[in-house]
Amino acid sequence: MAKFLLFRPEDLKDYMVRFFVKLNVPQTDAETAAEVLLTADLRGVDSHGIIRLNTYYGDRLRKGLIDPLSPVTVLNETPVSLALSGGNGLGQVVGKQAMIRCIEKAQQIGMAMVTVRNSNHYGIAGYYAMMALEKDMIGISFTNSQPLVAPTYGRKALIGTNPIAVAVPAGKERPYVLDMATSIVPIGRITVYDKAGKQIPAGWGIDKEGRVTTNPTDVLKGGALMPLGGIDTMRGYKGYGLGLLVDIFSGVLSGAGFLTSVGHPSSEGRFANVGHFFGAIRIDVFRSLSGFKEDMDAVIHELKDSPKAVGADRIYIQGEKEFERAEFNRTNGVPLLVPVVNSLAEAGKQVGVEFNLPVVGEKEEEE
Amino acid sequence: MAKFLLFRPEDLKDYMVRFFVKLNVPQTDAETAAEVLLTADLRGVDSHGIIRLNTYYGDRLRKGLIDPLSPVTVLNETPVSLALSGGNGLGQVVGKQAMIRCIEKAQQIGMAMVTVRNSNHYGIAGYYAMMALEKDMIGISFTNSQPLVAPTYGRKALIGTNPIAVAVPAGKERPYVLDMATSIVPIGRITVYDKAGKQIPAGWGIDKEGRVTTNPTDVLKGGALMPLGGIDTMRGYKGYGLGLLVDIFSGVLSGAGFLTSVGHPSSEGRFANVGHFFGAIRIDVFRSLSGFKEDMDAVIHELKDSPKAVGADRIYIQGEKEFERAEFNRTNGVPLLVPVVNSLAEAGKQVGVEFNLPVVGEKEEEE
Repeated sequence: MAKFLLFRPEDLKDYMVRFFVKLNVPQTDAETAAEVLLTADLRGVDSHGIIRLNTYYGDRLRKGLIDPLSPVTVLNETPVSLALSGGNGLGQVVGKQAMIRCIEKAQQIGMAMVTVRNSNHYGIAGYYAMMALEKDMIGISFTNSQPLVAPTYGRKALIGTNPIAVAVPAGKERPYVLDMATSIVPIGRITVYDKAGKQIPAGWGIDKEGRVTTNPTDVLKGGALMPLGGIDTMRGYKGYGLGLLVDIFSGVLSGAGFLTSVGHPSSEGRFANVGHFFGAIRIDVFRSLSGFKEDMDAVIHELKDSPKAVGADRIYIQGEKEFERAEFNRTNGVPLLVPVVNSLAEAGKQVGVEFNLPVVGEKEEEE
Repeated sequence: MAKFLLFRPEDLKDYMVRFFVKLNVPQTDAETAAEVLLTADLRGVDSHGIIRLNTYYGDRLRKGLIDPLSPVTVLNETPVSLALSGGNGLGQVVGKQAMIRCIEKAQQIGMAMVTVRNSNHYGIAGYYAMMALEKDMIGISFTNSQPLVAPTYGRKALIGTNPIAVAVPAGKERPYVLDMATSIVPIGRITVYDKAGKQIPAGWGIDKEGRVTTNPTDVLKGGALMPLGGIDTMRGYKGYGLGLLVDIFSGVLSGAGFLTSVGHPSSEGRFANVGHFFGAIRIDVFRSLSGFKEDMDAVIHELKDSPKAVGADRIYIQGEKEFERAEFNRTNGVPLLVPVVNSLAEAGKQVGVEFNLPVVGEKEEEE
C-alpha cells in the first residue's frame, strides 16, 4: 500500500503554470503544457502527469535542452497536410498547435494530417486525439519515444512504447477514446514492481539475453519491454509491427528521430528530436453525423449489455474508466504519491517556485 | 504432418477466373477476385486463398447472396473522400475499385479515404494496402468481419478478427507491410488444433463462460477468440480496442453492419453487409520521397542488424516472410492440402468447371 496526498486540480494547474513561466515559457504556452499534464493526472495516467514536471520538462528547460519559446515552423503545407518543426519546444505546446491546425484544415476540406519533427515528450497522446471531439471529428495522435521495446526475436530496446490514440464521438454515450502504448506495459510499471521487490508476470519483459524474465531488475538492467502480444506464440510480432508503424508515421514521415535516435526525455543531455503524427477526419464527408452517432451508441450498448465472463461484472469502452476517474478526481482531488510530492517540493526550491499547495485529503492504495 | 499438392500459380488463377465467370461474374471482375485470392495463397495466408473459392464466394453467388455484377455506387464524394456502396458484390472487386479511387484522389490532393458498405469478404486486407506502393504512397486497408472475438470481460463473440493492413514503401529494401488480425489467432488456427486433437496455448480463446481454455473445442462451441494481448494482465483490452477501432472505421463510418450485424461469409443465409475502409497518403506532401525512403531503409537495417535474442537468428520486418514465401511459391508451386484439393474438385463439379489442374509436386509439412 502506498500513501497519496490529494490536491485540487486547479491548484496543481496553477502551480505548473507558475513553474513553466518561471522557466521562461510564455504564459499561454505554460497554460497549455500544464493543462495537458493535469489531464493525465485527472484521467489516472499518473506516469504522464505532474510527476514529470521537473524530470521531463523543468530540468531540460534549465539545461537548454528544450526551447521555452517552442518556435514552431512550417516545413511543408498543402490544403490537407502540414509538416512542422517543433523547434525543440515543449511537446505539449507544439502538439496542441499542430492539432489545432489539423482540425482547422479538416474542417475546410474533410480530413487532414500533420507531422511534427524536432519536438519533445508531449504527455498523453489521447489529449490531442480528444481535441477533435469538440468539432465532432475523429482525432488521431501518435508519437514516438525513446527506445524501450525489443523487436520480436531481438534483445535490444529499439522501439519506443509509441502510443496510438484515436478518439471517436458518440451520441448520448461517452466517446470512444483509445490511448494505448504499443508495449504491454510502460517502463514505469516495471519500476513499481522492482521497488516493491515483486516478480512481474512472464511476458512483460525480457532480460539482456532476450529471454522472458519475471525479474523486473533484469528488464531494467539491459533488458527490454515486450511489445503488445508478448511472445511469438501470443503474436507479439503484431505489437512490434504496431510500435514500428507509429515510429514510421511519427518519426520517418515527419523527418524526426526514429528508433534509437530518439532521445530520452530526462536522462540524456541531447536534443530528443521526438516526432508526432496527428489526424482529423470529418464524419459528415462519409455519412450523416447523426446516423453515425446513433450507430456509435448502438455499438456501445451492444458491447456493454453483452454477457459477462465468469467473475466479471462490467464491459468497458475505451476511455470509459479514464472519464470516470477524471470526474472522481475533479471532485475529490488528484492523488499524488508522497515521494512525488517531495520531489515536486525539491524541484520547486531549485526553480524558485515553492510547492506549498493545500492538501485536501489523503488515501492509501495499491500503487 | 499433412500432405500438400503443388500447383502452378497461373493455373490456379486461370481456374478461379473460369469458376467465377461460370457464375456470371464479368471477366475483368473474375480476374480481380482470382488475383486477390491467389495473392493470399502465394503469400502463405492460405486461410484467405483458394480454399474459400466455393465456401465464401461460389456457394453464395449460386444462392443469390452475392451479386456477381458487384454494382458499386457512390453515396458521398468530396475531393478527399468517397463513400461507396458495394452493391452486395464480391469484396475483392469492390475493394479493388475503392482502393483505385482512393489512390487517384490521393495523387490529386495528397491523401484520401474511402469507406464501403454493403460488401462481402474481401480476402487479405494487405492486398489493397499494397496497391498504394506502386505509386510510392502509404496504403491503409481495414475490414470488419463476422463476430468471433469477445470484448475484455465479456464471453460472447461480438467483434470480428478485423484486420489492420498498412503498407509503406522503402528504398532499396522491401516495403513494410503490416497485415494483422486484431485477434491473437484466426478461428481457422483453433480448428486446426481441434482436428489434430491438440491443446491450444492458454490465452488464444475462451469457453462459453468466458474462462481461458486450452481446449479448442470449447472455443469453437460457444466460446470466443481473445483479442491481441489476451488476458487483462497482458493488456488484451488493447487488442479489443483495436478490433473495435477497425469496426468503427469499416462498419460505423461506412454505414455497413457492425458487431453481430455483420454476416458470416459462408454459414448464414443472409447478406453479409461487410464494411471496409481504405486510405492512401502521399509521402511527398510531408517530406521528400527520397529522404523518406532512405530513412525507411535505415530503420530496416537498424532493426535487422540488432542483436538477436538467445535462440533466434533473424529479426523480421512486417511482410518480409510473406514476400519470401511468395517468391518461393511462385517458383516451386502453391501448396494446397489434399482435403482442400478434394473439396475444390467437388465444388468444380457442382459449378461445372472441372478442377483438373496438373500437380507439379508434393510435400509433407506441419499444417
